[in-house]
Amino acid sequence: MKTISENTCFDGVQGVYSHASAACQCDMTFGLFLPREARDGPVPLLWYLSGLTCTHENAMTKAGAQAWAADQGIALVFPDTSPRGPGVADDEAYDLGQGAGFYVNATQDPWSPHFRMWDYVSRDLPDLLTENFAIDPDRQSITGHSMGGHGALTLAMNLPGRFRSVSAFSPICNPTGADWGRKQLSAYLGDDETAWEKHDASLMMCKAGFDGPILIDTGSDDQFIDLLRPETLAAAIAERRQPATFRLQPGYDHSYFFVSSFMEDHIAFHAQALWA
Amino acid sequence: MKTISENTCFDGVQGVYSHASAACQCDMTFGLFLPREARDGPVPLLWYLSGLTCTHENAMTKAGAQAWAADQGIALVFPDTSPRGPGVADDEAYDLGQGAGFYVNATQDPWSPHFRMWDYVSRDLPDLLTENFAIDPDRQSITGHSMGGHGALTLAMNLPGRFRSVSAFSPICNPTGADWGRKQLSAYLGDDETAWEKHDASLMMCKAGFDGPILIDTGSDDQFIDLLRPETLAAAIAERRQPATFRLQPGYDHSYFFVSSFMEDHIAFHAQALWA
Repeated sequence: MKTISENTCFDGVQGVYSHASAACQCDMTFGLFLPREARDGPVPLLWYLSGLTCTHENAMTKAGAQAWAADQGIALVFPDTSPRGPGVADDEAYDLGQGAGFYVNATQDPWSPHFRMWDYVSRDLPDLLTENFAIDPDRQSITGHSMGGHGALTLAMNLPGRFRSVSAFSPICNPTGADWGRKQLSAYLGDDETAWEKHDASLMMCKAGFDGPILIDTGSDDQFIDLLRPETLAAAIAERRQPATFRLQPGYDHSYFFVSSFMEDHIAFHAQALWA
Repeated sequence: MKTISENTCFDGVQGVYSHASAACQCDMTFGLFLPREARDGPVPLLWYLSGLTCTHENAMTKAGAQAWAADQGIALVFPDTSPRGPGVADDEAYDLGQGAGFYVNATQDPWSPHFRMWDYVSRDLPDLLTENFAIDPDRQSITGHSMGGHGALTLAMNLPGRFRSVSAFSPICNPTGADWGRKQLSAYLGDDETAWEKHDASLMMCKAGFDGPILIDTGSDDQFIDLLRPETLAAAIAERRQPATFRLQPGYDHSYFFVSSFMEDHIAFHAQALWA
């Protein structure tokens, strides 16, 4: 593991590190905020999965999350959204390939050698974090934005017991039924749609649900709302009688001005579960 | 005036606008955050002047300021740091020309036609804001980072009565005595150093002081601290018996991870003066 930068931030440390990922077979970069309390022992960890085109850096600099994580004594990890580098496949479109990993393990060419973001965020990076930093592996929660909200919800529902709580900002809720999803799931996983199901938050909600609290915020003026399909997840939550808070926030769009506006709420929500 | 974007943010609006500046003789872009309270009538205004290489955008996306301004019902304006555009002079160095206006009115070629940032932030932009937005011109305060901290301090001390309070994050404190200053003041104002004095916060502190509260934060591990020369301003404050809070913050550097860590303090400090 290599330290790229470490900056004092809210009396903790905002670090950026890179490491050779066994899952992705390339070097991966991530951001990690450790609150002051991590000097004295392991702290809870909140995962933040980012959206299309993002790297480890966007949320780390624009979401205003460190202020609230420092208040709550919680670490934040900001993984990248895909494998990267000269030997890694890519596509000219912004929504496929590098910057658009969709948190799946690709089985199709040319993606399968490196695009294993599911394993990366569920196994590879967690192992690295608990080995190298003062992180309590028994206290983890997960959130994300857009494609990252999709990742957070699907990981949480597919890995029962791993995360104490899950939240999402304007998540892609039904990728098997929208242009943000069908294209990518087909490219990464092939045309057998049964392989797609575990990667659809609305389908997973119908099938499995989540054994913990859920918080979802989407802007009522989100310019991508037709691609996100929040109505499918809302209906699935209601049909399952899943305990959850699902909010349409009046006037907000898809930007980090929206994400930062509700970051305090989300971190307080996770803190309640993480410190219970 | 042209609206470039408006995003709902902390129940207010983060806008970006451009306009033809009479002072700079070119189009200028700025960010403006209006809290919810501005729907009902004029609100106080806090100026945020940015540092070298920044545009209107850096602090607007990375400083986490809107959260606290919304709490306090205060507007924030984020001006650009220089004139820009194809007809505007520039230099290859990052610290001269576009992105490095130093908040002065240039008198020297090739800078004098456009580089009039003093007039822009003290007259041009204030007039535009009070004409077009719900801003109370009698309730203004000012802050800034690095070169912008220099701008905030020198404007506040040169325009008595304009600003109720002034603060700065890692300001350039003594540009007449450091490489961040001598090069630029010479280029923009010529070699007669008497013209430089009003643009040096430490000299202005000795000569005039400020009729209101002052808050200054600098990181003890600021990588540019030798260029900032905080010791000159600290000494001037003490010699003048100027009411002020001057803090060296342990472990922090020059980045926005530092700025965002203390933004809540600074906005609360200004709010006290603005709502008095």
